[in-house]
Amino acid sequence: MIEPPGPGSGVTLGVDIGGTKLFGVALEPSGRVVCEARVPTPQVDQTLVEHPDHRVGVDVADAVADVVGQLSADLGTSRPVPAVVGVGAPGMVDHHGALRFAPNLPGASGADLQRLVGERLEAATVIVENDANCAALGELAFGALRGVGEGVMVTLGTGIGGGVVVDGKVRLGCSGFAGEIGHMIVDPAGPQCPCGRRGCWERYASGGGLGRLAREAAYAGRLPHVVARAGGDPENVHGEDITRAALGGDEGAIGVLDELGWWVALGLANVVAMVDPERIVLGGGLAEAGELLLGPTRRAYTELVEGARARPPIEIMAATLGERAGAIGAALAARSLVEPT
Amino acid sequence: MIEPPGPGSGVTLGVDIGGTKLFGVALEPSGRVVCEARVPTPQVDQTLVEHPDHRVGVDVADAVADVVGQLSADLGTSRPVPAVVGVGAPGMVDHHGALRFAPNLPGASGADLQRLVGERLEAATVIVENDANCAALGELAFGALRGVGEGVMVTLGTGIGGGVVVDGKVRLGCSGFAGEIGHMIVDPAGPQCPCGRRGCWERYASGGGLGRLAREAAYAGRLPHVVARAGGDPENVHGEDITRAALGGDEGAIGVLDELGWWVALGLANVVAMVDPERIVLGGGLAEAGELLLGPTRRAYTELVEGARARPPIEIMAATLGERAGAIGAALAARSLVEPT
Repeated sequence: MIEPPGPGSGVTLGVDIGGTKLFGVALEPSGRVVCEARVPTPQVDQTLVEHPDHRVGVDVADAVADVVGQLSADLGTSRPVPAVVGVGAPGMVDHHGALRFAPNLPGASGADLQRLVGERLEAATVIVENDANCAALGELAFGALRGVGEGVMVTLGTGIGGGVVVDGKVRLGCSGFAGEIGHMIVDPAGPQCPCGRRGCWERYASGGGLGRLAREAAYAGRLPHVVARAGGDPENVHGEDITRAALGGDEGAIGVLDELGWWVALGLANVVAMVDPERIVLGGGLAEAGELLLGPTRRAYTELVEGARARPPIEIMAATLGERAGAIGAALAARSLVEPT
Repeated sequence: MIEPPGPGSGVTLGVDIGGTKLFGVALEPSGRVVCEARVPTPQVDQTLVEHPDHRVGVDVADAVADVVGQLSADLGTSRPVPAVVGVGAPGMVDHHGALRFAPNLPGASGADLQRLVGERLEAATVIVENDANCAALGELAFGALRGVGEGVMVTLGTGIGGGVVVDGKVRLGCSGFAGEIGHMIVDPAGPQCPCGRRGCWERYASGGGLGRLAREAAYAGRLPHVVARAGGDPENVHGEDITRAALGGDEGAIGVLDELGWWVALGLANVVAMVDPERIVLGGGLAEAGELLLGPTRRAYTELVEGARARPPIEIMAATLGERAGAIGAALAARSLVEPT
């Protein structure tokens, strides 16, 4: 398990490896972000889940080192370069910081990311944790999970990640793989998932799921304005187009977010059945739709959770650290190495 | 959360409310069962989930009192009648021992079971907990979960119950409703569940699910011997017939248990995605099929869990306390009232 560290004096660095970019922060113990940096995620080979020589893992480790270099340069000479770096990675990260399985970072499965990053940052101590567990840690320390005993962080992005908080601590499970909630199967006859199975929750309620719902709506003629803006081809409609159009008041796009909310709620109902949290925090890119997604999610949740009327209401709310949650949490995880709790 | 109590001197009573019978034990602190008792579960109104005057809850409380009376009589005059009684109930039990929602005990939803049982046992202190959480507590103290930090107890009976062990403790969640894993939705277009939703895991992998698979196989002509023994009508084939025939070597029945194992594994894969346990223990009536169910469950699990090759093997094994697990755990939960840990 990982706990928020106590107050300390040093700045630590955190880097969150996302589907499109790596995002890094230099974090003060107070939670203040001193500076931030980003680089694009290296091109990955979509046809491979594992890559025999871990080339993708090497490229990703290089990119992490680039972010750390930028952050260190930004911190300048007035501060010593932080010697402690935390990294959040998408997928199954074991207790030694190896990325054992990463369906959303094709080709990186099996890469010993902690070693690879460590080799590139010789003077630094490096820790690698699952990205959503990092986000949970960030929200627990400085965001929407503050003071929560039983809670769940859900990151809705390229895939779906989760961080399960029990008794005020992010729980990693026996191998470090707890919170892989995007790969709950919610329909065994559903669409193929990059993880190799069918009907995983993230096929429906992630960015990819939104894209699929969007294209279905586009082909069905429910998104005339969005399709027109996409050059007339329903195939060119993407998830981001829906969020943007919905925020602009497009009814068809709002309808697609309603559908997405139903699928988000389905998985949340399953998570609640298992862990009975007091609060669920939604982060990741899709959460930027705000109430346009949260509203339908809350409504569908009360239909989809067992015994809704017998339960006290559960708070389903947006993350407060936004895109920074994972990087902040990674920096916190790193600090726990030098300041054991 | 509930923890196994430390050693103490008194006998406590535990009663497990099952779908067909109530089963009670008098338990010594060592784990020795001094005596046991059982009475049939009161007839419940299958058409109602809630009953306005909680008549079913009253009947069930009467039955609990009957079991306690039998156990007290059996204990005789050589021991004082135990003043502490634990009760395991199926469904969502809150922190005050009220049965808030009980899809598998129709008509009892909303009954304040702890108060009702307490009124019938005036001299006793009564605690009511979820039956599967009790079973987890029993297995944790004296059975297959001994020494396990991260584990899950799964009871496969009339429905499916769960008890989630994190850091060596059975976790109840913020309202007492954690571990309701039977009501994870695994196919939103699936069969109607008594809980009011569709496609809950327990529609596929409980006694009811086995019955459905059995009738499908019977109508498809895959169970000629079983159907003959059931009087020639596929509709008369029940889950127990399958288990019995499979244990006797009937190939069609073994095939049905293979199918059941696939559905059991599907839910286990979802549980593992969320909590990453080191061990899963299967109890309840269906677990009596032993290796005939465990074998296909283990095989299907490796197909159905995310990143099987990247994980260390997880132990999927049978409960060791058998039908007594819930009652033993209920007695332990009761002891924790008088001997706080």
